[in-house]
Amino acid sequence: MTFKAGIFDSGVGGLTVAKSIYQAKLFDEIIYFGDTARVPYGSKNESTIIRYSLESLEFLKNFDINFLITACNSVSSCALPELRKEANFSVVGVIDAGIYAVTKQAKKDDTILVIGTKATINSNLYKKGLEAKGYKNIISIATPLFVPIVEEEAYSPSLIKETFKLYFDKLNPEEIDIVVLGCTHFPLLSSYLQKYFKNAKLIHSGEAIVELLKKEYNLKEKQNSKIHFLASENPAHLKKVAQKWF
Amino acid sequence: MTFKAGIFDSGVGGLTVAKSIYQAKLFDEIIYFGDTARVPYGSKNESTIIRYSLESLEFLKNFDINFLITACNSVSSCALPELRKEANFSVVGVIDAGIYAVTKQAKKDDTILVIGTKATINSNLYKKGLEAKGYKNIISIATPLFVPIVEEEAYSPSLIKETFKLYFDKLNPEEIDIVVLGCTHFPLLSSYLQKYFKNAKLIHSGEAIVELLKKEYNLKEKQNSKIHFLASENPAHLKKVAQKWF
Repeated sequence: MTFKAGIFDSGVGGLTVAKSIYQAKLFDEIIYFGDTARVPYGSKNESTIIRYSLESLEFLKNFDINFLITACNSVSSCALPELRKEANFSVVGVIDAGIYAVTKQAKKDDTILVIGTKATINSNLYKKGLEAKGYKNIISIATPLFVPIVEEEAYSPSLIKETFKLYFDKLNPEEIDIVVLGCTHFPLLSSYLQKYFKNAKLIHSGEAIVELLKKEYNLKEKQNSKIHFLASENPAHLKKVAQKWF
Repeated sequence: MTFKAGIFDSGVGGLTVAKSIYQAKLFDEIIYFGDTARVPYGSKNESTIIRYSLESLEFLKNFDINFLITACNSVSSCALPELRKEANFSVVGVIDAGIYAVTKQAKKDDTILVIGTKATINSNLYKKGLEAKGYKNIISIATPLFVPIVEEEAYSPSLIKETFKLYFDKLNPEEIDIVVLGCTHFPLLSSYLQKYFKNAKLIHSGEAIVELLKKEYNLKEKQNSKIHFLASENPAHLKKVAQKWF
């Protein structure tokens, strides 16, 4: 049987996840689709995110995929039940991977900070999932401005410092043991976050998803793996970003 | 004849324009439509903005409008020719209003700074329009982070100061005579901009559009004026913002 995965994100952020999966050769073929014409999802309503996700699944079905990975935390936090109802194959989201990674690296009494878009944080899915695994000290903070800072490549250290002040003012950064990067854009801010939360381990779900796929879905390394990039607008830009990152 | 206007924006920003028009009672009825499910437009491609604009026009035709105002600079900079081709009535954009306002307040040798989204600045429409009126010293700068700062209501003075540094680093703020707020979100940053560009007049197209409509389209004050608010997602939020601003 040929394993053909669709990897779906609102934009280019999910390429960080696609890269890990592609390099692990878990699928014969990967179709990456970024819904760049309607990006961002994270500030939209749950019902809108579900509608867009189902439309993206319908589109990906054109390519006869038999596995779906939602490489977007906002989609993974709102739309998995609906996607699973419409797909007749496995649907895996990055939040499961993030939680899996925490269980591998954190002690039960660690203080865990989860950051993400409004949609992801409001869904409370990380918090609930981590609590179900026995973690108790979980702080969730929506940090929506991190997304346009990455998208605009506005990596001014003093600007980033001010956004940290805005969002993390009430925290003692030294007390945070784990920071879950609950948005595929955030790994690009890793160096700043690591400097600020100097005692913390940063969890990037893209790195954990390969292990999760191998373990829970029994996927094995293939001899060859191909990947195609599609976007709902400006596919040339997405391909350029992919070439740079891959 | 009943004058029924559609006012169209990518989100809630255009309400600043709608408010002026509504208060001036230039139409018997106004239908305000915010395409909140696909906001923002300003970072999208020209072809996407045109497509979304035509779809929004089709939707507004349901309400038998006979006048269209594009209360979004990104739409006004990319999609007016296509909208005019599809509408069998007048289509007026905020950029015309902004240019009109400059001609009322600026001397020909003034140094004019135009700020807006990427789509608006890349279109070069303000610059071309102002040059056609005889202005020569025009500086255009895209300031895309201003949009999420307003949308997230992240009015931290030190954060805003850092974005000013990012975008205006090469300017001498004291030499700027006119600042054209080329995005409907930007009037909400007026106090910060006025403090930074302390010798400048700020131009807000929403304030100029009423005068433009009266003069160029011969619209007169009506006895009564009604306004309805519609949105492609979360209409309750748009209505709440409208109630707060109006």
